[in-house]
Amino acid sequence: MAYELFYWPEIQGRGEFVRLALEDAGAAYIDVARGSESEGQGVPAMLSLMRGEGISHIPFAPPFLRDGDVIVSHTAAILLYLGGRIGLAPIDEEGSLWTHGIQLTITDIVKEVYNSHHPIDEDKWFHEQKDEAIARATVFRRDRMPKFLGWFERILQANPAGADHLVGHAVTYADLSLFQLIEGLRFAFPLGAERELAKLPRVSALHKAITERPRLKAYLASARRVPFQETGIFRRYPELDG
Amino acid sequence: MAYELFYWPEIQGRGEFVRLALEDAGAAYIDVARGSESEGQGVPAMLSLMRGEGISHIPFAPPFLRDGDVIVSHTAAILLYLGGRIGLAPIDEEGSLWTHGIQLTITDIVKEVYNSHHPIDEDKWFHEQKDEAIARATVFRRDRMPKFLGWFERILQANPAGADHLVGHAVTYADLSLFQLIEGLRFAFPLGAERELAKLPRVSALHKAITERPRLKAYLASARRVPFQETGIFRRYPELDG
Repeated sequence: MAYELFYWPEIQGRGEFVRLALEDAGAAYIDVARGSESEGQGVPAMLSLMRGEGISHIPFAPPFLRDGDVIVSHTAAILLYLGGRIGLAPIDEEGSLWTHGIQLTITDIVKEVYNSHHPIDEDKWFHEQKDEAIARATVFRRDRMPKFLGWFERILQANPAGADHLVGHAVTYADLSLFQLIEGLRFAFPLGAERELAKLPRVSALHKAITERPRLKAYLASARRVPFQETGIFRRYPELDG
Repeated sequence: MAYELFYWPEIQGRGEFVRLALEDAGAAYIDVARGSESEGQGVPAMLSLMRGEGISHIPFAPPFLRDGDVIVSHTAAILLYLGGRIGLAPIDEEGSLWTHGIQLTITDIVKEVYNSHHPIDEDKWFHEQKDEAIARATVFRRDRMPKFLGWFERILQANPAGADHLVGHAVTYADLSLFQLIEGLRFAFPLGAERELAKLPRVSALHKAITERPRLKAYLASARRVPFQETGIFRRYPELDG
Protein backbone atom coordinates (compact mmCIF):
# COMPACT_ATOMS: atom_id res chain seq x y z
CA MET A 1 0.00 0.00 0.00
CA ALA A 2 1.20 3.50 -0.80
CA TYR A 3 2.44 5.72 2.00
CA GLU A 4 0.19 8.72 2.66
CA LEU A 5 2.03 11.99 3.24
CA PHE A 6 0.08 14.87 4.77
CA TYR A 7 1.48 18.36 4.31
CA TRP A 8 0.39 21.80 3.14
CA PRO A 9 -0.01 21.45 -0.62
CA GLU A 10 1.29 24.76 -1.93
CA ILE A 11 4.73 25.05 -0.35
CA GLN A 12 7.85 22.93 -0.07
CA GLY A 13 8.15 23.52 3.66
CA ARG A 14 9.12 20.77 6.05
CA GLY A 15 7.20 18.23 3.97
CA GLU A 16 9.75 18.58 1.19
CA PHE A 17 12.38 16.68 3.20
CA VAL A 18 10.02 13.70 3.23
CA ARG A 19 9.04 14.13 -0.42
CA LEU A 20 12.69 14.07 -1.49
CA ALA A 21 13.26 10.76 0.30
CA LEU A 22 10.13 9.14 -1.13
CA GLU A 23 10.90 10.41 -4.63
CA ASP A 24 14.56 9.42 -4.57
CA ALA A 25 13.62 5.94 -3.36
CA GLY A 26 10.93 5.56 -5.99
CA ALA A 27 8.49 4.70 -3.20
CA ALA A 28 4.75 4.69 -3.88
CA TYR A 29 3.11 7.54 -1.99
CA ILE A 30 0.09 9.81 -2.06
CA ASP A 31 0.57 13.51 -1.31
CA VAL A 32 -2.85 13.57 0.31
CA ALA A 33 -3.45 17.29 0.75
CA ARG A 34 -2.65 17.81 -2.94
CA GLY A 35 -5.29 15.25 -3.90
CA SER A 36 -8.89 15.71 -4.83
CA GLU A 37 -11.52 16.41 -2.19
CA SER A 38 -14.01 14.38 -4.21
CA GLU A 39 -11.77 11.37 -3.58
CA GLY A 40 -11.57 12.05 0.16
CA GLN A 41 -8.22 13.78 -0.10
CA GLY A 42 -7.22 17.45 -0.10
CA VAL A 43 -6.58 19.73 2.85
CA PRO A 44 -9.86 18.76 4.57
CA ALA A 45 -8.61 15.16 4.90
CA MET A 46 -5.46 16.48 6.59
CA LEU A 47 -7.35 18.80 8.92
CA SER A 48 -9.69 15.98 9.90
CA LEU A 49 -6.77 13.96 11.25
CA MET A 50 -5.35 17.04 12.99
CA ARG A 51 -8.70 17.33 14.78
CA GLY A 52 -8.21 13.74 15.90
CA GLU A 53 -11.17 12.30 14.02
CA GLY A 54 -10.96 8.52 14.28
CA ILE A 55 -7.39 8.44 15.63
CA SER A 56 -5.64 8.69 18.98
CA HIS A 57 -2.11 9.58 17.78
CA ILE A 58 -3.13 13.13 16.88
CA PRO A 59 -0.45 15.11 15.03
CA PHE A 60 0.56 18.45 16.49
CA ALA A 61 1.31 19.82 13.02
CA PRO A 62 2.08 18.66 9.47
CA PRO A 63 3.98 16.91 8.06
CA PHE A 64 2.78 13.52 9.16
CA LEU A 65 2.73 10.14 7.47
CA ARG A 66 0.16 7.36 7.51
CA ASP A 67 1.22 3.82 6.73
CA GLY A 68 -1.82 1.62 7.19
CA ASP A 69 -2.81 2.13 10.83
CA VAL A 70 0.44 3.79 11.84
CA ILE A 71 0.65 7.59 12.02
CA VAL A 72 4.05 9.23 12.44
CA SER A 73 4.51 12.96 13.05
CA HIS A 74 7.56 15.26 12.78
CA THR A 75 9.79 15.34 9.74
CA ALA A 76 12.73 13.63 11.43
CA ALA A 77 10.57 10.87 12.95
CA ILE A 78 8.91 10.21 9.58
CA LEU A 79 12.33 9.83 7.98
CA LEU A 80 13.46 7.58 10.84
CA TYR A 81 10.43 5.38 10.16
CA LEU A 82 10.90 5.37 6.40
CA GLY A 83 14.70 5.21 6.24
CA GLY A 84 15.35 1.50 6.55
CA ARG A 85 12.13 0.61 4.73
CA ILE A 86 12.97 2.54 1.55
CA GLY A 87 16.71 1.87 1.57
CA LEU A 88 17.77 5.34 2.64
CA ALA A 89 19.23 4.62 6.07
CA PRO A 90 21.17 1.88 7.85
CA ILE A 91 18.91 -0.66 9.53
CA ASP A 92 21.13 -1.27 12.57
CA GLU A 93 20.20 0.77 15.64
CA GLU A 94 23.46 2.70 15.90
CA GLY A 95 23.52 3.73 12.25
CA SER A 96 19.83 4.47 12.27
CA LEU A 97 20.15 6.76 15.32
CA TRP A 98 23.22 8.53 13.96
CA THR A 99 21.34 9.31 10.73
CA HIS A 100 18.36 10.47 12.80
CA GLY A 101 20.58 12.70 14.93
CA ILE A 102 21.92 14.40 11.80
CA GLN A 103 18.35 14.97 10.66
CA LEU A 104 17.48 16.49 14.05
CA THR A 105 20.35 18.94 13.60
CA ILE A 106 18.86 19.85 10.21
CA THR A 107 15.51 20.34 11.99
CA ASP A 108 17.24 22.81 14.32
CA ILE A 109 18.78 24.93 11.57
CA VAL A 110 15.53 24.88 9.59
CA LYS A 111 13.75 26.34 12.60
CA GLU A 112 16.42 29.05 12.81
CA VAL A 113 16.00 29.83 9.12
CA TYR A 114 12.29 30.30 9.76
CA ASN A 115 13.02 32.58 12.71
CA SER A 116 15.35 34.67 10.57
CA HIS A 117 12.31 36.15 8.80
CA HIS A 118 9.79 35.64 11.61
CA PRO A 119 11.63 36.22 14.90
CA ILE A 120 8.64 37.64 16.79
CA ASP A 121 5.28 36.38 15.52
CA GLU A 122 4.58 33.60 13.00
CA ASP A 123 1.06 34.94 12.45
CA LYS A 124 2.16 38.40 11.34
CA TRP A 125 3.71 39.58 8.08
CA PHE A 126 7.41 39.92 7.50
CA HIS A 127 7.14 43.70 7.09
CA GLU A 128 5.62 43.92 10.57
CA GLN A 129 8.80 42.48 12.13
CA LYS A 130 11.35 43.53 9.54
CA ASP A 131 13.77 45.34 11.85
CA GLU A 132 13.90 42.38 14.22
CA ALA A 133 14.28 40.01 11.26
CA ILE A 134 17.24 42.01 9.94
CA ALA A 135 18.89 41.75 13.37
CA ARG A 136 18.18 38.03 13.65
CA ALA A 137 19.23 37.26 10.07
CA THR A 138 22.52 39.07 10.61
CA VAL A 139 23.27 36.77 13.55
CA PHE A 140 22.10 33.77 11.54
CA ARG A 141 24.43 34.56 8.62
CA ARG A 142 27.39 35.51 10.80
CA ASP A 143 27.22 32.88 13.58
CA ARG A 144 24.59 30.23 13.17
CA MET A 145 24.81 29.20 9.50
CA PRO A 146 28.63 28.83 9.68
CA LYS A 147 28.34 26.80 12.89
CA PHE A 148 25.80 24.38 11.44
CA LEU A 149 27.35 24.06 7.98
CA GLY A 150 30.83 23.72 9.48
CA TRP A 151 29.58 20.77 11.53
CA PHE A 152 28.33 19.00 8.40
CA GLU A 153 31.76 19.49 6.82
CA ARG A 154 33.39 18.04 9.95
CA ILE A 155 31.23 14.94 10.11
CA LEU A 156 31.77 14.32 6.39
CA GLN A 157 35.49 14.54 7.02
CA ALA A 158 35.19 12.20 10.02
CA ASN A 159 33.14 9.54 8.22
CA PRO A 160 35.31 6.39 8.31
CA ALA A 161 33.77 5.30 5.00
CA GLY A 162 34.84 8.52 3.30
CA ALA A 163 33.52 12.04 2.82
CA ASP A 164 31.15 11.20 -0.05
CA HIS A 165 28.23 10.62 2.33
CA LEU A 166 27.19 11.74 5.80
CA VAL A 167 26.61 8.16 6.98
CA GLY A 168 28.58 5.12 5.86
CA HIS A 169 29.18 4.48 2.17
CA ALA A 170 25.71 5.04 0.71
CA VAL A 171 23.21 7.85 0.31
CA THR A 172 20.78 8.31 3.20
CA TYR A 173 17.84 10.63 3.71
CA ALA A 174 20.24 12.85 5.68
CA ASP A 175 22.24 13.49 2.48
CA LEU A 176 19.03 14.37 0.65
CA SER A 177 17.98 16.69 3.47
CA LEU A 178 21.37 18.41 3.48
CA PHE A 179 20.93 18.92 -0.28
CA GLN A 180 17.52 20.51 0.37
CA LEU A 181 18.90 22.69 3.17
CA ILE A 182 21.60 24.00 0.87
CA GLU A 183 19.12 24.63 -1.93
CA GLY A 184 17.02 26.59 0.51
CA LEU A 185 19.91 28.57 1.97
CA ARG A 186 21.12 29.48 -1.51
CA PHE A 187 17.63 30.66 -2.40
CA ALA A 188 17.17 32.68 0.79
CA PHE A 189 20.70 34.04 1.21
CA PRO A 190 22.31 34.02 -2.25
CA LEU A 191 25.26 36.09 -1.03
CA GLY A 192 25.68 34.75 2.48
CA ALA A 193 25.20 31.08 1.66
CA GLU A 194 27.48 31.06 -1.39
CA ARG A 195 30.22 32.77 0.59
CA GLU A 196 29.94 30.14 3.29
CA LEU A 197 29.73 27.17 0.92
CA ALA A 198 32.89 28.31 -0.83
CA LYS A 199 34.73 27.30 2.38
CA LEU A 200 33.14 23.85 2.55
CA PRO A 201 34.38 21.55 -0.23
CA ARG A 202 32.88 18.32 1.15
CA VAL A 203 29.42 19.76 1.72
CA SER A 204 29.51 21.33 -1.74
CA ALA A 205 30.61 18.09 -3.40
CA LEU A 206 27.86 16.13 -1.66
CA HIS A 207 25.28 18.69 -2.74
CA LYS A 208 26.45 18.38 -6.34
CA ALA A 209 26.46 14.58 -6.28
CA ILE A 210 22.87 14.53 -5.07
CA THR A 211 21.73 16.68 -8.01
CA GLU A 212 22.90 13.92 -10.32
CA ARG A 213 20.72 11.15 -8.94
CA PRO A 214 18.30 10.19 -11.72
CA ARG A 215 15.03 9.86 -9.78
CA LEU A 216 15.73 12.99 -7.78
CA LYS A 217 16.66 14.89 -10.93
CA ALA A 218 13.41 13.83 -12.56
CA TYR A 219 11.47 14.95 -9.51
CA LEU A 220 13.17 18.33 -9.37
CA ALA A 221 12.26 18.90 -13.03
CA SER A 222 8.65 17.83 -12.49
CA ALA A 223 5.58 19.87 -11.61
CA ARG A 224 5.49 18.07 -8.26
CA ARG A 225 8.46 20.17 -7.15
CA VAL A 226 6.89 23.50 -6.35
CA PRO A 227 9.31 26.42 -6.51
CA PHE A 228 10.75 28.17 -3.48
CA GLN A 229 8.53 31.15 -2.74
CA GLU A 230 7.86 33.73 -0.11
CA THR A 231 5.41 31.74 1.97
CA GLY A 232 7.63 28.81 2.96
CA ILE A 233 10.55 28.33 5.30
CA PHE A 234 13.22 29.62 2.94
CA ARG A 235 12.34 33.12 1.76
CA ARG A 236 14.35 35.57 -0.29
CA TYR A 237 14.16 39.00 1.27
CA PRO A 238 17.14 41.06 0.05
CA GLU A 239 17.17 42.94 3.38
CA LEU A 240 18.12 39.71 5.14
CA ASP A 241 21.08 38.79 2.96
CA GLY A 242 24.49 40.38 2.72
CA MET B 1 28.08 -0.48 32.51
CA ALA B 2 26.72 2.89 33.55
CA TYR B 3 25.38 5.26 30.91
CA GLU B 4 27.50 8.38 30.46
CA LEU B 5 25.51 11.60 30.10
CA PHE B 6 27.32 14.67 28.78
CA TYR B 7 25.77 18.05 29.48
CA TRP B 8 26.69 21.46 30.87
CA PRO B 9 27.11 20.87 34.60
CA GLU B 10 25.67 24.01 36.13
CA ILE B 11 22.22 24.25 34.58
CA GLN B 12 19.21 22.01 34.15
CA GLY B 13 18.86 22.86 30.47
CA ARG B 14 18.02 20.22 27.90
CA GLY B 15 20.06 17.64 29.79
CA GLU B 16 17.50 17.68 32.58
CA PHE B 17 14.96 15.81 30.46
CA VAL B 18 17.45 12.94 30.22
CA ARG B 19 18.42 13.17 33.90
CA LEU B 20 14.78 12.85 34.95
CA ALA B 21 14.35 9.66 32.94
CA LEU B 22 17.56 8.10 34.26
CA GLU B 23 16.74 9.09 37.84
CA ASP B 24 13.13 7.94 37.71
CA ALA B 25 14.22 4.60 36.26
CA GLY B 26 16.93 4.17 38.86
CA ALA B 27 19.40 3.61 36.02
CA ALA B 28 23.14 3.72 36.69
CA TYR B 29 24.65 6.77 35.01
CA ILE B 30 27.54 9.16 35.24
CA ASP B 31 26.90 12.86 34.74
CA VAL B 32 30.31 13.20 33.14
CA ALA B 33 30.74 16.96 32.95
CA ARG B 34 29.91 17.20 36.66
CA GLY B 35 32.68 14.72 37.45
CA SER B 36 36.27 15.26 38.41
CA GLU B 37 38.86 16.25 35.83
CA SER B 38 41.43 14.20 37.71
CA GLU B 39 39.32 11.14 36.87
CA GLY B 40 39.08 12.06 33.19
CA GLN B 41 35.67 13.63 33.57
CA GLY B 42 34.51 17.24 33.83
CA VAL B 43 33.75 19.68 31.04
CA PRO B 44 37.08 18.98 29.24
CA ALA B 45 35.99 15.36 28.67
CA MET B 46 32.78 16.65 27.08
CA LEU B 47 34.55 19.22 24.92
CA SER B 48 37.02 16.59 23.75
CA LEU B 49 34.18 14.53 22.26
CA MET B 50 32.63 17.64 20.73
CA ARG B 51 35.96 18.21 18.98
CA GLY B 52 35.63 14.68 17.62
CA GLU B 53 38.67 13.27 19.40
CA GLY B 54 38.62 9.51 18.88
CA ILE B 55 35.07 9.35 17.52
CA SER B 56 33.30 9.76 14.19
CA HIS B 57 29.74 10.40 15.43
CA ILE B 58 30.60 13.92 16.58
CA PRO B 59 27.83 15.64 18.56
CA PHE B 60 26.67 19.04 17.34
CA ALA B 61 25.86 20.12 20.90
CA PRO B 62 25.16 18.68 24.35
CA PRO B 63 23.33 16.75 25.63
CA PHE B 64 24.69 13.50 24.30
CA LEU B 65 24.89 10.03 25.75
CA ARG B 66 27.58 7.36 25.52
CA ASP B 67 26.69 3.74 26.06
CA GLY B 68 29.84 1.72 25.45
CA ASP B 69 30.78 2.53 21.84
CA VAL B 70 27.46 4.11 20.95
CA ILE B 71 27.08 7.89 21.05
CA VAL B 72 23.61 9.39 20.73
CA SER B 73 22.98 13.14 20.37
CA HIS B 74 19.83 15.26 20.80
CA THR B 75 17.59 15.03 23.85
CA ALA B 76 14.74 13.32 22.03
CA ALA B 77 17.01 10.77 20.33
CA ILE B 78 18.70 9.95 23.65
CA LEU B 79 15.31 9.30 25.21
CA LEU B 80 14.28 7.21 22.20
CA TYR B 81 17.41 5.11 22.74
CA LEU B 82 16.95 4.81 26.50
CA GLY B 83 13.16 4.48 26.63
CA GLY B 84 12.68 0.77 26.06
CA ARG B 85 15.94 -0.10 27.82
CA ILE B 86 15.01 1.57 31.12
CA GLY B 87 11.31 0.74 31.06
CA LEU B 88 10.09 4.22 30.23
CA ALA B 89 8.65 3.67 26.74
CA PRO B 90 6.85 0.98 24.78
CA ILE B 91 9.20 -1.33 22.92
CA ASP B 92 7.02 -1.84 19.85
CA GLU B 93 7.86 0.44 16.93
CA GLU B 94 4.52 2.24 16.80
CA GLY B 95 4.42 3.01 20.52
CA SER B 96 8.08 3.93 20.54
CA LEU B 97 7.64 6.40 17.67
CA TRP B 98 4.48 7.92 19.14
CA THR B 99 6.34 8.57 22.41
CA HIS B 100 9.26 10.00 20.43
CA GLY B 101 6.93 12.27 18.46
CA ILE B 102 5.51 13.68 21.70
CA GLN B 103 9.06 14.33 22.88
CA LEU B 104 9.86 16.12 19.61
CA THR B 105 6.88 18.41 20.22
CA ILE B 106 8.33 19.15 23.66
CA THR B 107 11.64 19.91 21.92
CA ASP B 108 9.81 22.44 19.77
CA ILE B 109 8.17 24.31 22.64
CA VAL B 110 11.43 24.26 24.63
CA LYS B 111 13.13 26.02 21.72
CA GLU B 112 10.35 28.60 21.70
CA VAL B 113 10.73 29.14 25.44
CA TYR B 114 14.42 29.84 24.84
CA ASN B 115 13.57 32.26 22.04
CA SER B 116 11.15 34.10 24.32
CA HIS B 117 14.13 35.59 26.18
CA HIS B 118 16.66 35.39 23.34
CA PRO B 119 14.79 36.10 20.10
CA ILE B 120 17.70 37.79 18.32
CA ASP B 121 21.12 36.62 19.50
CA GLU B 122 21.94 33.69 21.82
CA ASP B 123 25.40 35.16 22.46
CA LYS B 124 24.16 38.48 23.82
CA TRP B 125 22.55 39.35 27.14
CA PHE B 126 18.85 39.49 27.74
CA HIS B 127 18.93 43.22 28.41
CA GLU B 128 20.45 43.76 24.96
CA GLN B 129 17.33 42.30 23.32
CA LYS B 130 14.73 43.04 25.96
CA ASP B 131 12.23 44.89 23.77
CA GLU B 132 12.24 42.10 21.21
CA ALA B 133 11.96 39.53 23.99
CA ILE B 134 8.92 41.28 25.44
CA ALA B 135 7.28 41.19 22.01
CA ARG B 136 8.16 37.53 21.47
CA ALA B 137 7.16 36.47 24.99
CA THR B 138 3.79 38.16 24.56
CA VAL B 139 3.14 36.02 21.47
CA PHE B 140 4.44 32.97 23.29
CA ARG B 141 2.09 33.45 26.23
CA ARG B 142 -0.91 34.40 24.11
CA ASP B 143 -0.63 31.97 21.17
CA ARG B 144 2.12 29.41 21.42
CA MET B 145 1.96 28.13 25.00
CA PRO B 146 -1.84 27.60 24.80
CA LYS B 147 -1.46 25.82 21.45
CA PHE B 148 1.19 23.42 22.74
CA LEU B 149 -0.35 22.79 26.18
CA GLY B 150 -3.79 22.40 24.65
CA TRP B 151 -2.42 19.66 22.40
CA PHE B 152 -1.08 17.74 25.40
CA GLU B 153 -4.54 17.97 27.00
CA ARG B 154 -6.11 16.65 23.78
CA ILE B 155 -3.79 13.67 23.41
CA LEU B 156 -4.31 12.78 27.08
CA GLN B 157 -8.04 12.86 26.46
CA ALA B 158 -7.63 10.75 23.31
CA ASN B 159 -5.46 8.08 24.92
CA PRO B 160 -7.49 4.86 24.59
CA ALA B 161 -5.88 3.60 27.83
CA GLY B 162 -7.10 6.66 29.76
CA ALA B 163 -5.95 10.18 30.50
CA ASP B 164 -3.53 9.26 33.28
CA HIS B 165 -0.59 8.98 30.87
CA LEU B 166 0.39 10.37 27.50
CA VAL B 167 1.14 6.92 26.06
CA GLY B 168 -0.69 3.71 26.97
CA HIS B 169 -1.26 2.81 30.60
CA ALA B 170 2.19 3.42 32.12
CA VAL B 171 4.55 6.31 32.72
CA THR B 172 6.95 7.09 29.86
CA TYR B 173 9.78 9.56 29.52
CA ALA B 174 7.28 11.80 27.71
CA ASP B 175 5.26 12.13 30.92
CA LEU B 176 8.43 13.03 32.83
CA SER B 177 9.36 15.58 30.18
CA LEU B 178 5.90 17.14 30.28
CA PHE B 179 6.33 17.41 34.05
CA GLN B 180 9.65 19.20 33.52
CA LEU B 181 8.17 21.48 30.88
CA ILE B 182 5.41 22.53 33.27
CA GLU B 183 7.88 23.06 36.11
CA GLY B 184 9.88 25.29 33.79
CA LEU B 185 6.90 27.22 32.47
CA ARG B 186 5.64 27.84 36.02
CA PHE B 187 9.08 29.11 36.98
CA ALA B 188 9.45 31.37 33.95
CA PHE B 189 5.86 32.58 33.59
CA PRO B 190 4.26 32.26 37.04
CA LEU B 191 1.21 34.27 35.97
CA GLY B 192 0.85 33.15 32.37
CA ALA B 193 1.49 29.46 32.94
CA GLU B 194 -0.78 29.14 35.98
CA ARG B 195 -3.61 30.86 34.12
CA GLU B 196 -3.21 28.41 31.25
CA LEU B 197 -2.84 25.31 33.42
CA ALA B 198 -6.06 26.17 35.24
CA LYS B 199 -7.84 25.30 31.97
CA LEU B 200 -6.10 21.94 31.57
CA PRO B 201 -7.23 19.41 34.19
CA ARG B 202 -5.60 16.35 32.59
CA VAL B 203 -2.21 17.99 32.12
CA SER B 204 -2.35 19.32 35.69
CA ALA B 205 -3.30 15.93 37.12
CA LEU B 206 -0.47 14.20 35.25
CA HIS B 207 2.00 16.81 36.50
CA LYS B 208 0.84 16.20 40.07
CA ALA B 209 1.00 12.42 39.74
CA ILE B 210 4.61 12.61 38.53
CA THR B 211 5.65 14.62 41.61
CA GLU B 212 4.61 11.65 43.74
CA ARG B 213 6.90 9.08 42.16
CA PRO B 214 9.37 8.03 44.90
CA ARG B 215 12.65 7.99 42.94
CA LEU B 216 11.80 11.22 41.14
CA LYS B 217 10.79 12.85 44.41
CA ALA B 218 14.10 11.84 45.98
CA TYR B 219 15.97 13.25 43.00
CA LEU B 220 14.11 16.57 43.09
CA ALA B 221 15.00 16.92 46.79
CA SER B 222 18.67 16.05 46.19
CA ALA B 223 21.62 18.29 45.45
CA ARG B 224 21.80 16.72 41.98
CA ARG B 225 18.72 18.75 41.02
CA VAL B 226 20.15 22.20 40.44
CA PRO B 227 17.58 25.00 40.79
CA PHE B 228 16.07 26.88 37.88
CA GLN B 229 18.12 30.00 37.36
CA GLU B 230 18.69 32.79 34.92
CA THR B 231 21.23 31.06 32.70
CA GLY B 232 19.15 28.10 31.52
CA ILE B 233 16.25 27.64 29.14
CA PHE B 234 13.52 28.63 31.58
CA ARG B 235 14.24 32.11 33.00
CA ARG B 236 12.13 34.30 35.22
CA TYR B 237 12.16 37.84 33.89
CA PRO B 238 9.10 39.67 35.24
CA GLU B 239 8.97 41.78 32.04
CA LEU B 240 8.15 38.62 30.06
CA ASP B 241 5.26 37.43 32.18
CA GLY B 242 1.76 38.84 32.53
